[in-house]
Amino acid sequence: MNKKVLLFTGAAVLVLALGLAIGYGIKPSAPAANMTVKSIPEGELNPEVWGKYYPDQYASYLKNKEMTQGNSKYGGSAKFDRLERDPMLKTLFSGYGFGQDYTKDRGHIYAIQDVLDTKRKKPSASCWTCKGPEVPGLINQMGDAYYTASFDSLKDKMHYSVSCADCHDPKTMDLKITRPAFIEGLKAMGKDPNQLTRQEMRSAVCGQCHVTYYFAPKTNKVIFPWANGMNVDQISKYENDQKFSDWTMPDTKTPMAKVRHPEYEMFSSSVHAANGVSCADCHMPYVKEGQSKISSHHWESPLNTISQSCQSCHKQSEDYLKKQVIDVQDKTNQTQMAAEKSIVAAIDAIKKATNDPKADPKLLEEARQLHRDASFRWDFVASENSTGFHNPTEALRVLGEAIDLGHQAEMKATQAMSPKQ
Amino acid sequence: MNKKVLLFTGAAVLVLALGLAIGYGIKPSAPAANMTVKSIPEGELNPEVWGKYYPDQYASYLKNKEMTQGNSKYGGSAKFDRLERDPMLKTLFSGYGFGQDYTKDRGHIYAIQDVLDTKRKKPSASCWTCKGPEVPGLINQMGDAYYTASFDSLKDKMHYSVSCADCHDPKTMDLKITRPAFIEGLKAMGKDPNQLTRQEMRSAVCGQCHVTYYFAPKTNKVIFPWANGMNVDQISKYENDQKFSDWTMPDTKTPMAKVRHPEYEMFSSSVHAANGVSCADCHMPYVKEGQSKISSHHWESPLNTISQSCQSCHKQSEDYLKKQVIDVQDKTNQTQMAAEKSIVAAIDAIKKATNDPKADPKLLEEARQLHRDASFRWDFVASENSTGFHNPTEALRVLGEAIDLGHQAEMKATQAMSPKQ
Repeated sequence: MNKKVLLFTGAAVLVLALGLAIGYGIKPSAPAANMTVKSIPEGELNPEVWGKYYPDQYASYLKNKEMTQGNSKYGGSAKFDRLERDPMLKTLFSGYGFGQDYTKDRGHIYAIQDVLDTKRKKPSASCWTCKGPEVPGLINQMGDAYYTASFDSLKDKMHYSVSCADCHDPKTMDLKITRPAFIEGLKAMGKDPNQLTRQEMRSAVCGQCHVTYYFAPKTNKVIFPWANGMNVDQISKYENDQKFSDWTMPDTKTPMAKVRHPEYEMFSSSVHAANGVSCADCHMPYVKEGQSKISSHHWESPLNTISQSCQSCHKQSEDYLKKQVIDVQDKTNQTQMAAEKSIVAAIDAIKKATNDPKADPKLLEEARQLHRDASFRWDFVASENSTGFHNPTEALRVLGEAIDLGHQAEMKATQAMSPKQ
Repeated sequence: MNKKVLLFTGAAVLVLALGLAIGYGIKPSAPAANMTVKSIPEGELNPEVWGKYYPDQYASYLKNKEMTQGNSKYGGSAKFDRLERDPMLKTLFSGYGFGQDYTKDRGHIYAIQDVLDTKRKKPSASCWTCKGPEVPGLINQMGDAYYTASFDSLKDKMHYSVSCADCHDPKTMDLKITRPAFIEGLKAMGKDPNQLTRQEMRSAVCGQCHVTYYFAPKTNKVIFPWANGMNVDQISKYENDQKFSDWTMPDTKTPMAKVRHPEYEMFSSSVHAANGVSCADCHMPYVKEGQSKISSHHWESPLNTISQSCQSCHKQSEDYLKKQVIDVQDKTNQTQMAAEKSIVAAIDAIKKATNDPKADPKLLEEARQLHRDASFRWDFVASENSTGFHNPTEALRVLGEAIDLGHQAEMKATQAMSPKQ
């Protein structure tokens, strides 16, 4: 090949890449014109500094300060007391922090303040892991000692809440996985984290934190329990096999496992995901900000941005689209309440059996296992921040299992107490 | 307005109407060219005669003779013994005909043969109501005496299985409601049957028969229980308020109500319906037959006609579309089985309580009501011919209720037997 051909090919590739980049919005808008340096210094974590280079993205990011229910029926970014709204939660999490203080978190910009404010116990620095961009550096520096350090000992290191450097490379602006647990979770499933497509990355950077996890006993390391797969039944089996528990419920002596916001897992098997939709497609739609069209960094319910989030694919009216979402959420909420009632009744029966010296210990153990499994399934939907919408049929299927197991737990406990025949 | 303007306007309207008619396939293809008479004689019911005028539609209709599972996983048009496939049904319908003989029906062309073949008792001529085009005439002629006449007494009047005249006006080929129960059902909901749009008629003609119904006590009249609405909870409440029962389960003494194939009800609140899709859009897609493009009259699973049925709206691959359908059906089937287990256990417990002279009669009554309500909800999905696909979230929501009520029934019966405290 002669030089001319090479040059031409190179230019063609560049033009094509640029076209694709513009077409798919792959690159953010160029740095502000008045900046003299070309890129953000390596290691810069302060979102304000990033904001000087990307003022429009930063302006949209600052909107995360807003605290409002917006068009959301069950969620929103306003703080509210979940325990007050739904007192059954106090029983469902009794003996655990979430039974004493379970507040709806606000936007990403409040992540540090919200974790400082919670009255729940923070077993170690692991609780900082998803709160801001300084964590990956600390993990790098401290190694596994990071996870066992006390929460308070790292408080002064946390200056910035979830922001730019959590998901972006400062030099190239490429999306970047910064949390080791996500990489290890993918590997445990046999997936290569380096083989994620750009579109998969537009979900993966969210999935670094919007997942369920647990702290490994002794090491307190953050683990994504994905070795069997990301389905609730696979995750539950994995944690059962590990004999992992977050706490033992005092009245029932059930070894319990808490689920944390498994948005990534739930969404991954949804119809939206099957159509190649990413988290960012709905939660970071293209909007006009300042002089540019940018991918919004104001993360909120897409019910507040139906026109940009939904109508780029779904041509129906806003009213229609909102109605469909709320219909799914109403059905999920109704079924979730039935699951909660069945588990609360199970807790009551197991408590009685636990206090009954004549109760059959084997049956009582079986009741506790059913209680644990029911609670895990219910919580997989209840702690997932979409009230079923991220995967409607899966959410309802899983709640059906929860209702079933909850009632079975109650009956098994009752059976444990009944006189032998 | 002068004549020219009138003429022009008239012509324009005609052209527009013709355009719409062709565009939307409103009119069937013209009668066969070799026919000398212009339209099918009033009162002609024989599909063979209709077939001479509309040979392509008739040719597709004759394909209903095929008996095959096709691409369907849970349905198809082949005959199979439901009781053999799922022995829990024997318990769920014990003491009733469906517990002794419950065969998967074949296509419309076999409607008369299939009702003759069933070993279930036929309480009256009401069982003929949806089997062929001669029924509306008989109802007209006999009045309410039709419904109380014996099944056998009208056997010789039934020459043709479900066919052309059940849905079409012979003169205009317009879609036509021929079953009084559907008209009365709509009126009971406050809907005017004369105000249905053409697109609504493309579901309504199916909804004349693909619904749940009951035979009114004494009169045996076919009633669509829609006075409260078409949702399962509304229908169940209506039949409860009427104190209607199809049979009393011998072992449990539960007054039971059977659900019959509520496709129309289930579909009416689905996302497809909300988008203006009709039954015919998926089950009667446009196909090439002979020399014309016609709306297929071979009613079968759209999984056999994905390209014509689904891909006119959904541009994904056949494999993808099939996978989505089967995924919904697998989830529905799994949850349906859990519901069946919970109700079978309830039946077992209520049976024991019924045989226990010391059982608390009030609690036992409550257990029976829970059993009835659980069974009605489970059956609303189980007897609906789509394994959840006609309305996935509703099917799963309703099965969640069934699981819940089934377990509650079991526990209430157990409680009825336990020694007083």
